[in-house]
Amino acid sequence: MTETKRVYLFGNGHAEGKAEMKNLLGGKGANLAEMNLIGVPVPPGFTITTDACIEYTKIGREKLRQLLTDDVKAAVKHVENLMGMQFGSNENPLLVSVRSGARASMPGMMDTILNLGMNDNAVQGIIKKTHNERFAWDSYRRFVQMYGDVVLGLKPQNKEEEDPFEVIIDQMKAEKGVKNDLELNSEDLKKLVSLFKKAVKDNTGHDFPDDPWEQLWGAIFAVFDSWNNDRAIYYRQINGIPHEWGTAVNVQAMVFGNMGDTSATGVAFTRDAATGEKIFNGEYLINAQGEDVVAGIRTPQQITKEGSKRWAKLAGISEEERAAKYPSLEETMPDVYKELYEIQHKLEQHARDMQDIEFTIQEGKLWLLQTRNGKRTGFAMVKIAVDMLNEGLIDEKTALLRMEPNKLDELLHPVFSKAALANANVIAKGLPASPGAATGQIVFFADDAEAWAKQDKQVILVRIETSPEDLRGMNVAKGILTARGGMTSHAAVVARGMGKCCVSGAGNLVINYKARTMTVDGKTYKEGDWISLNGSTGQVLEGKLETQDPELSGEFATLMALADKYTKMKVRTNADTPNDAKVARNFGAEGIGLCRTEHMFFDGNRIKAMREMILADDETGRRKALDKLLPMQRSDFEGIFTAMDGFPVTIRLLDPPLHEFVPHEEAAQAEIAKELGIDVKKVKERVDSLHEFNPMLGHRGCRLGNTYPEITEMQARAIIEAAINVQKKGVKVLPEIMVPLVGTLAEFKLQESIIRETAEAVFKETGQKVDYLVGTMIEIPRAALTADQIAENAEFFSFGTNDLTQMTFGYSRDDAGTFLPIYLKKNLLKNDPFQVLDQEGVGQLVEMGTKRGRSTRPNLKVGICGEHGGEPNSVEFCHRVGMNYVSCSPYRVPIARLAAAMAAIR
Amino acid sequence: MTETKRVYLFGNGHAEGKAEMKNLLGGKGANLAEMNLIGVPVPPGFTITTDACIEYTKIGREKLRQLLTDDVKAAVKHVENLMGMQFGSNENPLLVSVRSGARASMPGMMDTILNLGMNDNAVQGIIKKTHNERFAWDSYRRFVQMYGDVVLGLKPQNKEEEDPFEVIIDQMKAEKGVKNDLELNSEDLKKLVSLFKKAVKDNTGHDFPDDPWEQLWGAIFAVFDSWNNDRAIYYRQINGIPHEWGTAVNVQAMVFGNMGDTSATGVAFTRDAATGEKIFNGEYLINAQGEDVVAGIRTPQQITKEGSKRWAKLAGISEEERAAKYPSLEETMPDVYKELYEIQHKLEQHARDMQDIEFTIQEGKLWLLQTRNGKRTGFAMVKIAVDMLNEGLIDEKTALLRMEPNKLDELLHPVFSKAALANANVIAKGLPASPGAATGQIVFFADDAEAWAKQDKQVILVRIETSPEDLRGMNVAKGILTARGGMTSHAAVVARGMGKCCVSGAGNLVINYKARTMTVDGKTYKEGDWISLNGSTGQVLEGKLETQDPELSGEFATLMALADKYTKMKVRTNADTPNDAKVARNFGAEGIGLCRTEHMFFDGNRIKAMREMILADDETGRRKALDKLLPMQRSDFEGIFTAMDGFPVTIRLLDPPLHEFVPHEEAAQAEIAKELGIDVKKVKERVDSLHEFNPMLGHRGCRLGNTYPEITEMQARAIIEAAINVQKKGVKVLPEIMVPLVGTLAEFKLQESIIRETAEAVFKETGQKVDYLVGTMIEIPRAALTADQIAENAEFFSFGTNDLTQMTFGYSRDDAGTFLPIYLKKNLLKNDPFQVLDQEGVGQLVEMGTKRGRSTRPNLKVGICGEHGGEPNSVEFCHRVGMNYVSCSPYRVPIARLAAAMAAIR
Repeated sequence: MTETKRVYLFGNGHAEGKAEMKNLLGGKGANLAEMNLIGVPVPPGFTITTDACIEYTKIGREKLRQLLTDDVKAAVKHVENLMGMQFGSNENPLLVSVRSGARASMPGMMDTILNLGMNDNAVQGIIKKTHNERFAWDSYRRFVQMYGDVVLGLKPQNKEEEDPFEVIIDQMKAEKGVKNDLELNSEDLKKLVSLFKKAVKDNTGHDFPDDPWEQLWGAIFAVFDSWNNDRAIYYRQINGIPHEWGTAVNVQAMVFGNMGDTSATGVAFTRDAATGEKIFNGEYLINAQGEDVVAGIRTPQQITKEGSKRWAKLAGISEEERAAKYPSLEETMPDVYKELYEIQHKLEQHARDMQDIEFTIQEGKLWLLQTRNGKRTGFAMVKIAVDMLNEGLIDEKTALLRMEPNKLDELLHPVFSKAALANANVIAKGLPASPGAATGQIVFFADDAEAWAKQDKQVILVRIETSPEDLRGMNVAKGILTARGGMTSHAAVVARGMGKCCVSGAGNLVINYKARTMTVDGKTYKEGDWISLNGSTGQVLEGKLETQDPELSGEFATLMALADKYTKMKVRTNADTPNDAKVARNFGAEGIGLCRTEHMFFDGNRIKAMREMILADDETGRRKALDKLLPMQRSDFEGIFTAMDGFPVTIRLLDPPLHEFVPHEEAAQAEIAKELGIDVKKVKERVDSLHEFNPMLGHRGCRLGNTYPEITEMQARAIIEAAINVQKKGVKVLPEIMVPLVGTLAEFKLQESIIRETAEAVFKETGQKVDYLVGTMIEIPRAALTADQIAENAEFFSFGTNDLTQMTFGYSRDDAGTFLPIYLKKNLLKNDPFQVLDQEGVGQLVEMGTKRGRSTRPNLKVGICGEHGGEPNSVEFCHRVGMNYVSCSPYRVPIARLAAAMAAIR
Repeated sequence: MTETKRVYLFGNGHAEGKAEMKNLLGGKGANLAEMNLIGVPVPPGFTITTDACIEYTKIGREKLRQLLTDDVKAAVKHVENLMGMQFGSNENPLLVSVRSGARASMPGMMDTILNLGMNDNAVQGIIKKTHNERFAWDSYRRFVQMYGDVVLGLKPQNKEEEDPFEVIIDQMKAEKGVKNDLELNSEDLKKLVSLFKKAVKDNTGHDFPDDPWEQLWGAIFAVFDSWNNDRAIYYRQINGIPHEWGTAVNVQAMVFGNMGDTSATGVAFTRDAATGEKIFNGEYLINAQGEDVVAGIRTPQQITKEGSKRWAKLAGISEEERAAKYPSLEETMPDVYKELYEIQHKLEQHARDMQDIEFTIQEGKLWLLQTRNGKRTGFAMVKIAVDMLNEGLIDEKTALLRMEPNKLDELLHPVFSKAALANANVIAKGLPASPGAATGQIVFFADDAEAWAKQDKQVILVRIETSPEDLRGMNVAKGILTARGGMTSHAAVVARGMGKCCVSGAGNLVINYKARTMTVDGKTYKEGDWISLNGSTGQVLEGKLETQDPELSGEFATLMALADKYTKMKVRTNADTPNDAKVARNFGAEGIGLCRTEHMFFDGNRIKAMREMILADDETGRRKALDKLLPMQRSDFEGIFTAMDGFPVTIRLLDPPLHEFVPHEEAAQAEIAKELGIDVKKVKERVDSLHEFNPMLGHRGCRLGNTYPEITEMQARAIIEAAINVQKKGVKVLPEIMVPLVGTLAEFKLQESIIRETAEAVFKETGQKVDYLVGTMIEIPRAALTADQIAENAEFFSFGTNDLTQMTFGYSRDDAGTFLPIYLKKNLLKNDPFQVLDQEGVGQLVEMGTKRGRSTRPNLKVGICGEHGGEPNSVEFCHRVGMNYVSCSPYRVPIARLAAAMAAIR
């Protein structure tokens, strides 16, 4: 039997581990080993295995320490040798970091200790080396605090208690009358060290361990223990990480960039994280710690000479001043720069992805502290992937899998120019309900929006909340701002559908419709004042800000073509107008998955005819009004069919409850009464009788068509007649008529028979035919449960996951704002189920509905038309379930196309 | 190969078929054969088999007619011989009926032809025999009309066309200036026959067939054809009857009770259908047709002498007059009576159930036309079953299976006395929302109801609709009447829970709260006027009617004891007060399955404390108010635990949205503001902020307890403290704490941890312990779908099928009134899913939830507490699913007990 190996050394281009040993060494340990192996200089150290962690839980601390002792001693010696330093030395003290590192990244969940090895001797050694007494004592007091908190357990376990070290610092600052830690001098910090140690003694009954070895053992076991702290366990539960994996412990020499003018520290990117251009870039500071680079106290300098010159030009600094005050690393330390340049190239080639690098130069020696895949903008994400594909670094599938589809959003909406943002004043914050940037003059009413827009004014429609009556105003506004409502409020949903910028639920706004003002934090804005909205961040900004339209670069087109090569699902769009249809088609939509007919009923004369129908006494009266609506609907459909020439168009029959169409204000009621020549009392009575306690679960969807069959008849006629008319003109038309809110086969059959009889009648009248399908939304749990029956007659299914989520959870989208945010905060829900499809619950019904439907009708066409159709995780789920297509708002079509391709590759 | 037998003869005590041959001969054919075999005189005839019907669909009319010709000829000869009559004779004509008869009863779905064989000869024969020219011609014209409609296809196929025969009759009546068919004389009828025949000729191009044989063949095939008419196919579809069963054809001699004074006709019951007493009874008329007995033109006479005397006494007729004018059959035809008496006894013994018999005496000869199990009241149902059990006619299981559990309702509620009803004036009709009878003075407001009740007045609470604020008024009222709302409206559900009479949705009522009046059909009733309600029929009656309390007879108790012997499920009750609990316990409830705590928050000071909590700014404020509620809740629970000593009590934590507790009227808002010393504006704002678009899917159930944990804490404390207090007094207490509206395991776990921590705290404080369970309602589809997860922590499940039905169908109970009635009428739904559990859809979730729950926790206790828990079909479903118990309103407990026993036996 071979002895179990528990400790793996690395340093100086050698390592006992390698990248493939992630399970045993954890992600960080394997990475550190690998960097050594490819010749990147990293501070030497060693990794204690994840197996040792598991062993620890079984045999306990004492036994494991015995098993580890010899190996750990040898390993520290190895580090001392490579660094030429010693633990606890007052000349050349070795300080180390002790970090956790599991197989899967668990950021922030487990503990880290820095500067370990610090004691009264070592602090002297540091002072000698750095000539910086304050830094040395600050490092020392930080170490005592960190060690006291993490290893010795002084960190309070609940929020009401205070950290004893913070209490001491606050006391000292109060005594000295200073506000900032930075105002404490080295004497103060020295005193803090002794006060901290006293606090440890008071709290634990033991002296603070001065022996670096004692410190080290304490830290190793503290890291192991942190594997089983509450937040780590919880994190693993919700992320599905097995508890038996364990964590490794990484012990590594500390290096310092502040040991004089031959020391430095910096960060760098192998390519431009904003634009994706293949330009090595980054910043550094001489004689500084890592945190100084980001703290903004000193101005960081550019790494490359070219970058430095560009920076100076932007900042308005002359070449002379630049070269004198802000020289690049390329200029100040050309050899180190050359080494760094080669290393970054090597790292990128090795990782085959853009790298974000941290480095420290300690007394002329370059150390890499970390390399990881760099964060990037959506623009950079696309460019880098396509460039690397062209460079042969990655293959097509990898290029696609590198995408975060949601980031494409940036490429698809207008943005504020950087210059404009620099001087902008944020006056309020709401939810980023629909991305993009918009600037315009405030109006408070939808008809004002229309009137102003006709005069070529740019307007922002500001409402407490929106309703379907505001639709036309929303359509002409540049952006929409509401004081109430969540990410799935009417305003948000409609705006996303329109691809229009929207900030919703900006709770600080006090809107006074009467005075036509909006007040925020005491400042009042009137109708006509200019504001700007950032729908991607939720910011409301004062004044008129310049926006710029997105430029879809060549790389973007390349990538979308690649996506189409690998995808198995079609992507359609939710579109109610020819214009929406055109936009979506340009974005690559192959059909309409949801055309809502109700939006067509709000325009001028239409709403009048609609109201006349609702207020009619009997079928005859309703038919008379419907006859007026027929030609309007028909011409709408003609426009949409023409825009989607060659692709299928799914049209949903009337869905919302009738009360959404009638006027609720007395004046409007009087007006309609006068127009129709009926008593205003009767109008009021009818409107009141339409009131519902839970309209979501009320008289809507096919319940309308089944109680008033003449409505379905009119809509079916409009669709079929429109299809025949455009077909005559050579347009290829594929109408799919969709019955909403079906819960039983009988409901569907009644609607289907009305549709088919009407179609036959139109065929007879015109002597022309068109192919069409009749199918249904699956949006009621009962429909999914009885999908085998419904598929006997339905020719296609489209999952309406908005309503399906509402009913499966019992959440009203309009009301969930009162508890959903709390649920997310308390981790009772991982995601807002209206944004990310709940695969565990709602997903069961989607899967069940698909399977059962296809058990009856194997070639059943299945798609999704809820908001989830444009959400990448949900799109992947749809692919797994075997859907034929997803449908989403026009501006999310490219995102869905990418997500579908990625799902197919996975 | 033996020849297939297609025609089965019967008559004169012989038959080729028997009862067991139902598949081949149909229900009616097998029955007619059996009656012959046991020696009951039925008019002779023959049955053509169901196989022949199927053969017909395959080989067609001509071929089948060839195959049948010899057999049918022989069979008609057989009937002629037994009756001594001939087809088409002008002396002694044989007339026959031709009827369908399938394996399963399909009432009214297929066709029947009477008086077949009638022609110009036969009508003369009938006149000679009956001396009743009018009857003879009327029979003739009826035959021509029936034959023309059914066999010759003159009956119009859609509602817009008119029956040509009715057109002719209307024309004749118009010409003669009469309104009623009865005013046409024999000459008129004779003329009608010829006009009808002309209409046949005009419509079909053929003469009406005078040859009885032609008539017969036409009728036989018309009956076969009717198996495949649209309504029969539809009936089979919705009742699951296979299309390949086919129907038999029964041809039987017609007999007449109007052939002079030795002829008669009548109906009889082997026991009293109202009381169940074992008394042979019935009515007859000499020289009359069957329909005369029920038509009410002549006063029918009693069959037995004893019955006749009793009848005379009630009608105030002297014995002399009775004997002279209304003698019994026992007196007028003693021999026939004796024969009838023996036959009825024989039939009951043979059927082992109370029989409803139709008979005709033709010239002194008794013929039985029909026997079937008699319809009976709930009282009679119970008494007959127990009597027959005691008589040894049936066994215990049969006695139980004879029950229609819903009929027990009659035995469990007050009823109007017959005398009172006789003179009552029905002023309106609503839905029979909660059974029973109630009489009282009209009040329109809940607080008036309370005030009047305190003065010992009987009141009927009349509201447009009720809300939880009316609860106390409803509780003291004798009955509740609403103008709006369905069978599952607030008023209906609460009233059924209270066992209180309620008529809901009486749409004709115009209620004016301001004037305190109710107007119906122009008549106005004021506050204080007396009205009466029949909650079993939905009638609203004028004035004060006498009611009588139910008497639970000894047989009822016997039957319930029998039920308990066979049942496998427990029956619990839904009860919110000690009084409800006591009532239910008396009815045999073994525990409480649903105790709703919210009803406890409406009383005087409680609602104030509740409002204070809702209006509080923060947790501290809420806790202060909750502290006031704690002792009140605790004492409620003490009362309920004590009343249910020894049985489990399931308590549901707060469920409804908070806006149900706050005042919506300005005056009430001002009052509460004053009391709490806060600004009325703030009250209004808070109330407004609680408004929800779909409160059903809003901030309620455990969403309250998870956002305001202090509410759960208070309720858990009240329950545990109450349990400990009563346990000290020797009460055996089994609290089951139920978390409502759970959709995810995480939600349940958070509530459970609050409950268990609170319980532990109380145990520590008091030094006492009680056993308790923590479980959940399964009422959200997602909970059923993820029941395996939820059962990891939940110790019991109770299916809340009211809400589960709402969400699975997407129907709001409060709003479904706008489309559900239309859906039922159009057969889009078989039942109101809120009354009868939808086993096909909602039932899948119930079954899934139960199975998945038990896959995690095999001994999981599962019950139901929706309205369906007291509905017999649903109870049977619960048994099949394997539930441990059902829970229902107190007054339905016996019904559920019976249904549960029946399910276990089946």
